[in-house]
Amino acid sequence: MIDRTHDPDRRSWVESANQPGCDFPIQNLPFATFRRAGDRRPLPGAAIGDRMLDLTVFGIEALSGILSMPRARRVELRARIGDFLERHTPDAEFHLTPIAHCEFELPCAIGDYTDFYASANHARNVGSLFRPDNPLLPNYKWVPIAYHGRASSIVLSGTPVRRPCGQISPAAGAPPIYAPTRKLDYELELGAFLGPETELGEPVPIGRAPEHLAGVCLLNDWSARDIQAWEYQPLGPFLAKNFATSISPFLVTAEALEPFRGDPNARPEGDPPPLPYLAGGSAFDIQLEVWLRTPGMSEPVRVSRGNFRSMYWTLDQMIAHHTSNGCNLRPGDLIGSGTVSGPEPESRGCLLELTRGGAEPLALPNGETRRFLEDGDEVILRGWCEAPGFRRVGLGECRGVVLPAIHSE
Amino acid sequence: MIDRTHDPDRRSWVESANQPGCDFPIQNLPFATFRRAGDRRPLPGAAIGDRMLDLTVFGIEALSGILSMPRARRVELRARIGDFLERHTPDAEFHLTPIAHCEFELPCAIGDYTDFYASANHARNVGSLFRPDNPLLPNYKWVPIAYHGRASSIVLSGTPVRRPCGQISPAAGAPPIYAPTRKLDYELELGAFLGPETELGEPVPIGRAPEHLAGVCLLNDWSARDIQAWEYQPLGPFLAKNFATSISPFLVTAEALEPFRGDPNARPEGDPPPLPYLAGGSAFDIQLEVWLRTPGMSEPVRVSRGNFRSMYWTLDQMIAHHTSNGCNLRPGDLIGSGTVSGPEPESRGCLLELTRGGAEPLALPNGETRRFLEDGDEVILRGWCEAPGFRRVGLGECRGVVLPAIHSE
Repeated sequence: MIDRTHDPDRRSWVESANQPGCDFPIQNLPFATFRRAGDRRPLPGAAIGDRMLDLTVFGIEALSGILSMPRARRVELRARIGDFLERHTPDAEFHLTPIAHCEFELPCAIGDYTDFYASANHARNVGSLFRPDNPLLPNYKWVPIAYHGRASSIVLSGTPVRRPCGQISPAAGAPPIYAPTRKLDYELELGAFLGPETELGEPVPIGRAPEHLAGVCLLNDWSARDIQAWEYQPLGPFLAKNFATSISPFLVTAEALEPFRGDPNARPEGDPPPLPYLAGGSAFDIQLEVWLRTPGMSEPVRVSRGNFRSMYWTLDQMIAHHTSNGCNLRPGDLIGSGTVSGPEPESRGCLLELTRGGAEPLALPNGETRRFLEDGDEVILRGWCEAPGFRRVGLGECRGVVLPAIHSE
Repeated sequence: MIDRTHDPDRRSWVESANQPGCDFPIQNLPFATFRRAGDRRPLPGAAIGDRMLDLTVFGIEALSGILSMPRARRVELRARIGDFLERHTPDAEFHLTPIAHCEFELPCAIGDYTDFYASANHARNVGSLFRPDNPLLPNYKWVPIAYHGRASSIVLSGTPVRRPCGQISPAAGAPPIYAPTRKLDYELELGAFLGPETELGEPVPIGRAPEHLAGVCLLNDWSARDIQAWEYQPLGPFLAKNFATSISPFLVTAEALEPFRGDPNARPEGDPPPLPYLAGGSAFDIQLEVWLRTPGMSEPVRVSRGNFRSMYWTLDQMIAHHTSNGCNLRPGDLIGSGTVSGPEPESRGCLLELTRGGAEPLALPNGETRRFLEDGDEVILRGWCEAPGFRRVGLGECRGVVLPAIHSE
């Protein structure tokens, strides 16, 4: 619901928040867990301009407490934080810390992490490489396909990612080898933090799915394509994915995204309508970009851009599907959307798609090329929302540099 | 290592522990988290005969503390508990509670749950139903296949399990329906609790894998075969499995299992040797049974029996493989072994195998038959270890009754 917290004319006494193009105006107020330089205690915070607001002043002890709240209480908290940052009160600055003087942690302990596969464009592009004769499987337009991922190896933006070793099949029929992956890739995804909790055995109807979406972040689902190709049948990806997943520190709330919520795109002519338990819900208009900086570049270069609206399945549908068998959700569970790839070539959200499995190397402006990621490459995801009549709401960045493998064998 | 804690002549002053056939003699001492009747506080405990010993007397606050310990400290704790229960001290009974007066909880918060697929017999039997032309995939004898499961829906033995609804494809090419599963199944598995933690990016060599195995339990990986068949490609099982996983309350330590540790079975003639990072390790001799009680029976009947030694991959290999890409393990992570099926027809660990996908119904002694589980059916897993010269060590039971579906559509 649009309310006064979305008013584009609202301004904060934190001047940096009022600058055009700022990711964190008073209309956003994303949550993060941060530490002040030199202080070990993690604090729950909200970003405003170039500052973090310490939320302990609102009686919040940790972000997990916010994720557990019913939506109405979260909405009320957002209004109170906005008021505090709109009307200056004595000593209010005392509760602010420059972001440049903060260290960030994961927003909360992540219980279960589920990764969807919600872009039909991605599924078709990848499927055509793994199964040329059968790119989009018969269940795709009926089932929001997903698998469980690894929570322990979810790391914060900025954490370097070690190139993994694993079993690789050098040629069909040849014995596999254990070696560093030669096909390290990123995947541009949106992450979604869930809360409040649901009961085991009780599905969430799609009309109530928005109550369980706390907010979103950027997510890089690092992938080792050669390990994946060899291991994924019949039970899906495992070691090809679980060596690291990076997320951005800022949890942009579902409330801040309200102005960018709309009807899902119409399904292509001839596609079946969703089954009743998946019918309804809304889609978010979120612009997403991937930037790459190789060791040979001083500045990163954009390699793709897409929009979260291009997904075949929405977050509401993912939540309804996830609980349709009674599976319970807990506050702090994380959903990955799956790679966000649009229909255009420039909107392909991973190198596997951009280079067609490495067959068509990506040409970079400095003359380098990339089939897959090389050691020292840095991947940067960016995201933001824009709509006429509303302030821009940013998701910040999700960064990660590739470290060389430790080959122990 | 075998030490005095395994001495078969050792006896406890808790007389019930000395009875032949007891699951919990002084040589076992499995851990569990329990509450005394009428007391809400969960306590860390060790089972001895028909009693629970409150481990707070040893300075333990929760089982998670034990799982975090290096193996040497766990071994030392085991010795101290054994001594306490061997030599009676004044007021020692004060720390015991009859198991009949206890309620149990999950041993600890489970971070990540990984389910393996380590029985080649199971993989071949199931593969022949899902892919008749290609039962055992080319990667099986090289890769300990696994997928991530759902931690939130792991429930304790005794918790009823609601029949899930989900998408089911009634016939090839026909649109799917959303309906209660018609093919509800159990899977007989061994669960393994992990600890202490490993670092992200650092593989555990197979020779050190035993240091990270804290103990085992019984695990029932409830499965909806019709949902599974429709959803599992290309990313593996999801809603077909994550509606519930039951585990037994008692964590039988790796130390208690030492007398039942041996070399893995020789691989069948012609099979490739494991890659070096998977070569070595040991296998546990654990007898496992499935019992079924339908609403029409007063007593359960045994429907299968197998042995954990029949697995193609060992727990050591699973731990080495899981971390071979640098994936980190945390204390309280749970591994499922995959269905334990031996080569004999009577050792098939799920109904899918026992009834060949429902084609050959199981005949029960009271004249009933079962293709899959029906509402009201209770599944009971049992397990124990026996070896000449050692006391029997039991795993207890893992029970669950099927509740009818709530069909909301």
